[in-house]
Amino acid sequence: MSSDSSDAPAGITKGTRAAEARRKPRDPLAPDPGPPSTGAEGGFDPHVPDIDYGVLDSLVGYAIRRAQIRIYEDFVASLAQWQITPPRFSALVIISRNPKLKLTDLARILGIARSGAVLLVDALEEMNLVARRPAAEDRRAYSLVLTPTGKRTLEAAKQAVIAHDAHVASALTEQEQATLKSLLGRLAPPRAE
Amino acid sequence: MSSDSSDAPAGITKGTRAAEARRKPRDPLAPDPGPPSTGAEGGFDPHVPDIDYGVLDSLVGYAIRRAQIRIYEDFVASLAQWQITPPRFSALVIISRNPKLKLTDLARILGIARSGAVLLVDALEEMNLVARRPAAEDRRAYSLVLTPTGKRTLEAAKQAVIAHDAHVASALTEQEQATLKSLLGRLAPPRAE
Repeated sequence: MSSDSSDAPAGITKGTRAAEARRKPRDPLAPDPGPPSTGAEGGFDPHVPDIDYGVLDSLVGYAIRRAQIRIYEDFVASLAQWQITPPRFSALVIISRNPKLKLTDLARILGIARSGAVLLVDALEEMNLVARRPAAEDRRAYSLVLTPTGKRTLEAAKQAVIAHDAHVASALTEQEQATLKSLLGRLAPPRAE
Repeated sequence: MSSDSSDAPAGITKGTRAAEARRKPRDPLAPDPGPPSTGAEGGFDPHVPDIDYGVLDSLVGYAIRRAQIRIYEDFVASLAQWQITPPRFSALVIISRNPKLKLTDLARILGIARSGAVLLVDALEEMNLVARRPAAEDRRAYSLVLTPTGKRTLEAAKQAVIAHDAHVASALTEQEQATLKSLLGRLAPPRAE
């Protein structure tokens, strides 16, 4: 019941991260717990009966979150044979289409933390889908490439993802799908600083 | 580089999970790396110049992912003073509106793994916003409640979230916002098993 670690000083890392660590003595933004790692029985119910969602029901942001969970579930079921999740798929596509990509580029493109990109690429390397190659112009850096297995897997997975995405949007007309994409693209305009 | 554990038999759990465990010999769904934990300079660019996004540009699922990252960034910036992330906020709202809620209920409602809900509630408890209370009807279980600080924080945070959500959708008319929510609610119809 007690919480004895809440005020423990953060273990400071070295180098340029130290400044960041000082600014943020403890992680203010714990990782998003993300969707269930095993499908819930019957799948995610966006409106569990008898549950009061309060303000969440009125938020555009929560409507997007609900949709994202359902899409994630269908994606993962569709690609189960390759154990490819949405971030893994996005990484494979970006790596395949953009030569000489570095880890920091990948993180920036996918909108994830560098530490998240490290975990992602480690998993893809362990699955023998991605390899790190020394970068010609910088000995300390490396570029990401697909392995031959990675190329074959991506081709097959891509067809499965296209079919999955068609299913996700199958209740919408083509016009509605275009409207949806357009409306999504207009969300969250950057704040003036 | 090698992947020596991919075909290792799973440590089988008991009961109904055994069948599922056999189908999924190792964690096929590494945690979603999630959005950046520190805002990228200038924020997330959904279309980084000179990057080829390939099939991603055509997917409804990736359009949602792009929107979600931008919304997440604005949310986190808007609630920085309380260190409240979207999942933390959702959890606080659900706990505040639903008495006698258990951890497994919370996980199911939010569409996250139980392990993710544990981390989430641990963080909220450490922040002194949520407490675990023994459940009257089951000595081994407990219910989640907001602390007095949690109640005050939620009231303030709720106003900030409403303002954030209004900003997120500020480029859309009310009619367009309603259309967006309606289209989102029709995505990813459950698969016939």
